[in-house]
Amino acid sequence: MQTTDWTLLDVEKGIHLDPFRCSEETSVALAGTDHWSVSMRRLRGGVSEGVDVVEIDNGRLKVSVLPTRGMGLWKGTCDGLDLGWKSPVTLPVHPTYVNALDRDGIGWLAGFNEWLCRCGLDSNGPPTDSATLHGRIANLPAHTLRLHVDPTGEIELTGIVDESQMFGPRLQLTSTVKTRAGSNRLTIIDTVTNLGGKPADLELLYHINQGPPFLEAGAKLVAPIREVSARNARALEGLDTFDEYTAPDSAYSEQVYLFDLAQESGKKTIAMLRSADGSKGFSVHYDSSQMPCFTQWKNTQAIEDGYVTGLEPGTNFPNPKSYERQQGRVISLAPRGGSHTIELELAVHSSAAAVQEVEREIAAAQATVTRTVHRSLLPKFAAP
Amino acid sequence: MQTTDWTLLDVEKGIHLDPFRCSEETSVALAGTDHWSVSMRRLRGGVSEGVDVVEIDNGRLKVSVLPTRGMGLWKGTCDGLDLGWKSPVTLPVHPTYVNALDRDGIGWLAGFNEWLCRCGLDSNGPPTDSATLHGRIANLPAHTLRLHVDPTGEIELTGIVDESQMFGPRLQLTSTVKTRAGSNRLTIIDTVTNLGGKPADLELLYHINQGPPFLEAGAKLVAPIREVSARNARALEGLDTFDEYTAPDSAYSEQVYLFDLAQESGKKTIAMLRSADGSKGFSVHYDSSQMPCFTQWKNTQAIEDGYVTGLEPGTNFPNPKSYERQQGRVISLAPRGGSHTIELELAVHSSAAAVQEVEREIAAAQATVTRTVHRSLLPKFAAP
Amino acid sequence: MQTTDWTLLDVEKGIHLDPFRCSEETSVALAGTDHWSVSMRRLRGGVSEGVDVVEIDNGRLKVSVLPTRGMGLWKGTCDGLDLGWKSPVTLPVHPTYVNALDRDGIGWLAGFNEWLCRCGLDSNGPPTDSATLHGRIANLPAHTLRLHVDPTGEIELTGIVDESQMFGPRLQLTSTVKTRAGSNRLTIIDTVTNLGGKPADLELLYHINQGPPFLEAGAKLVAPIREVSARNARALEGLDTFDEYTAPDSAYSEQVYLFDLAQESGKKTIAMLRSADGSKGFSVHYDSSQMPCFTQWKNTQAIEDGYVTGLEPGTNFPNPKSYERQQGRVISLAPRGGSHTIELELAVHSSAAAVQEVEREIAAAQATVTRTVHRSLLPKFAAP
Repeated sequence: MQTTDWTLLDVEKGIHLDPFRCSEETSVALAGTDHWSVSMRRLRGGVSEGVDVVEIDNGRLKVSVLPTRGMGLWKGTCDGLDLGWKSPVTLPVHPTYVNALDRDGIGWLAGFNEWLCRCGLDSNGPPTDSATLHGRIANLPAHTLRLHVDPTGEIELTGIVDESQMFGPRLQLTSTVKTRAGSNRLTIIDTVTNLGGKPADLELLYHINQGPPFLEAGAKLVAPIREVSARNARALEGLDTFDEYTAPDSAYSEQVYLFDLAQESGKKTIAMLRSADGSKGFSVHYDSSQMPCFTQWKNTQAIEDGYVTGLEPGTNFPNPKSYERQQGRVISLAPRGGSHTIELELAVHSSAAAVQEVEREIAAAQATVTRTVHRSLLPKFAAP
Repeated sequence: MQTTDWTLLDVEKGIHLDPFRCSEETSVALAGTDHWSVSMRRLRGGVSEGVDVVEIDNGRLKVSVLPTRGMGLWKGTCDGLDLGWKSPVTLPVHPTYVNALDRDGIGWLAGFNEWLCRCGLDSNGPPTDSATLHGRIANLPAHTLRLHVDPTGEIELTGIVDESQMFGPRLQLTSTVKTRAGSNRLTIIDTVTNLGGKPADLELLYHINQGPPFLEAGAKLVAPIREVSARNARALEGLDTFDEYTAPDSAYSEQVYLFDLAQESGKKTIAMLRSADGSKGFSVHYDSSQMPCFTQWKNTQAIEDGYVTGLEPGTNFPNPKSYERQQGRVISLAPRGGSHTIELELAVHSSAAAVQEVEREIAAAQATVTRTVHRSLLPKFAAP
Repeated sequence: MQTTDWTLLDVEKGIHLDPFRCSEETSVALAGTDHWSVSMRRLRGGVSEGVDVVEIDNGRLKVSVLPTRGMGLWKGTCDGLDLGWKSPVTLPVHPTYVNALDRDGIGWLAGFNEWLCRCGLDSNGPPTDSATLHGRIANLPAHTLRLHVDPTGEIELTGIVDESQMFGPRLQLTSTVKTRAGSNRLTIIDTVTNLGGKPADLELLYHINQGPPFLEAGAKLVAPIREVSARNARALEGLDTFDEYTAPDSAYSEQVYLFDLAQESGKKTIAMLRSADGSKGFSVHYDSSQMPCFTQWKNTQAIEDGYVTGLEPGTNFPNPKSYERQQGRVISLAPRGGSHTIELELAVHSSAAAVQEVEREIAAAQATVTRTVHRSLLPKFAAP
């Protein structure tokens, strides 16, 4: 019988498979593709020293997962299209090279280059007296990592990451990255559990960052919008074109918009980054009851400085936690096992027809609500 | 002739034995037991990546030493009883994941889960403008590690850890963990040496942390007390029951008591944590002239948050160094070789008879002095 | 055909040769020596864990390069003379053990023990609100490392180190260490390139640190001086003997002098540390148009605390960057490839004749200018 389950990493059991590779040649065939593989290797040298990279190839979509960086997704490709962006930080950064306290609490940026990274778990948002930018989870390594493949076509990687300290919250993230052989999609299923003896806060935001070829002059954000507000005066300047992107511009400084997205009953909400000619799209799909807040980060700086936009679903907006608490957007997890689960799908569309299909779904959701674009900063969204 | 001496680690000589194991099968038989072993392995993954664990098994008592974490003792067992506690931080944390500056200087807590860890060497105590919580030594790795076994029954592990910086103190800890085959005891012999050209401060406190099965509702601290003072108003609330422990309580917040312990002439002082029914005890034994201060940390929080008590002999109380200096409790080591040596014995008692024997010794020491329980904060002990 | 080119490290290609060694036995013979070698090994244990050390032996001069510490030079020997010094930090320190924010921004000192380390690239100098002591480059690891040897006698090691962050400068250092077989010299050729989309600052200073046998009571700094100023009141006390060194003195506290050095047309400037009897000298040679500032660090503390002097050519003086900017000493690199190159030669002289030859060269340069020793702090050199 062929192996379809592996423990790639388990600190307590002393397991670390390096290098690791499985595929149809060494394991089972998967319905949906002729070739698939999952590999793990540890990077050596530079600030990447010690970072494990798991590459999942479902035969159509490839994605590199970073268990050492909180189960973030480094980059990928699908139908020949690049997923991710070109950060000035070119390679994965080991968490021990990231000093969160640096630069008045924005040291997190020293490791920021993923296609998808998490901001949380105890808090996210700007640095404050009691928190650093975007929290700890992106710089905490998984202590357990398991892989399962199924002849029906499923590939499933699960990592467990602890965010805990004495006299601090004791949170555990169990993150599964799932894809089907031959698919243009992958799903992330994250459960955050409070293992402590007291109620614990949860703030979780997915910083999903995409550059070319989806981002370009004329690219658009397409989403079913109930309300949208600029985050600050700088964003207000560009309110009329919040959903349009320009070419790289070294004089550009970031603009952020905050959204309440609509969704059809029984369905998920969708946000899509669509290329100028509509031939390419990258979309995120999730249940807005799990993540009621959506943030758009426009950062169309020079290519060399990181030309990118962020589609960022979250349990909260990236404001200071004290503000989000006032607005009722900080989740409280019950002691001894209270948990919150999020399911998030990422999909890549490489034809005009596929893009139009997603646009139709978004239009249907939009049709259920009136779109309100706030001409001034909306207090419940934008912290003063 | 069989090997009885090993260098497990020596940076300069390029030695790192991983994995390592010796026992009666590969080395000599030891008087006092049929089987013994010492092993070293390096943990892989999570925040434990790169932590070396040395497990010493004398045939009765097992203890895991962490050379990578300043020669701390992670955990152990003796006669089937667990030594240590369950911190929210479950596995050993590599020092490079501990940012001492974090959370306004209490980042040390991110790595805190040992049965015994040291606070020092230049300072310990709360964070101040010039120091972080409990100093550096617990997050500094040994650069040299040697093992010696002797057919007469002795097992001896010695590590050397440097705490030094340009324009800072240049201190060296040489720490030996010693146990006899078949024994319920182990001894730590620590020498701190000033290798610098100027006099150097020394503050050294042993944070010895024990949870169940010794700690439980009705457990007691038994010690020969000359004076005891609460550390602050919170501790004063519980003064009448300072030596008694309750069941885990998620609403509990820590209480700390500061002691001057007595000792019989020519003997050592003793502090014991005794289970409710007196069938189990864990005791620490040392010369109070080497460590005149004893601190009790009561932290009977929820099990999930770290139900634990600390028995903490030290050269000083864990007050700010400036305060300890005023009280004459900061040791000054002479330049070029000035040193201070501490010998500390840990013993496990698994029968009522053994516990009673220790209680008799403590009673004899108590009989030499009057016990004074200060009803208000004692200025010489408790910093304002 | 024998190999003369190696990639020792390349993160992206997954290359890390450990251990590595080449010599006349495994590669080619080099003109100028009977035996040569280059080796690389990774240190294990203590705070050195994970530091790669490359030792280049040209048959006469040996030097240990630390790619893991920004291509610094740890130590060396030539003609039996020790190059470097004895820091209280005895072994190379892995960057992840250096918290730059520590001790109010002078945490850099925890890793400071090299013969030559760089201060920069975005800034160097004292800690300020926006920078830590001496910048980041000394604690950033190379991600690429290549070696070339040539039968004509050349040995050339090139490392690439990135100093970049999102929303921060994006600088790349390409550093080559070059020596000829049988030579008493080595050359460092550093190019710093701005890979970002905006102009970037550059401050680069070479902290070249030498102790005995060149430094001793009666040793002298010999250099062609146009102007020299004390840095502060403490240095002003010793102005009359700025170029003379005393025996180790545990009561000594550092003195720093700032220089404008002269150089003959078409030649390089030279600064030499000469032993008391003139039989030994260590000199640095460079083009003052590349590095117009020279700093002398006198730190003749006790041997145990680091008896050392620094000869420090730089693009700037180690003042706060805001001050250097006012003085026009911060280099601005153009976006997308703007660069600055520095060539720096280190030479070892082990005979009175060789020392005298260098002294003659220095005298010739001195003859082109009047030496001005400023009796008060020179505002353009010494920040208030």
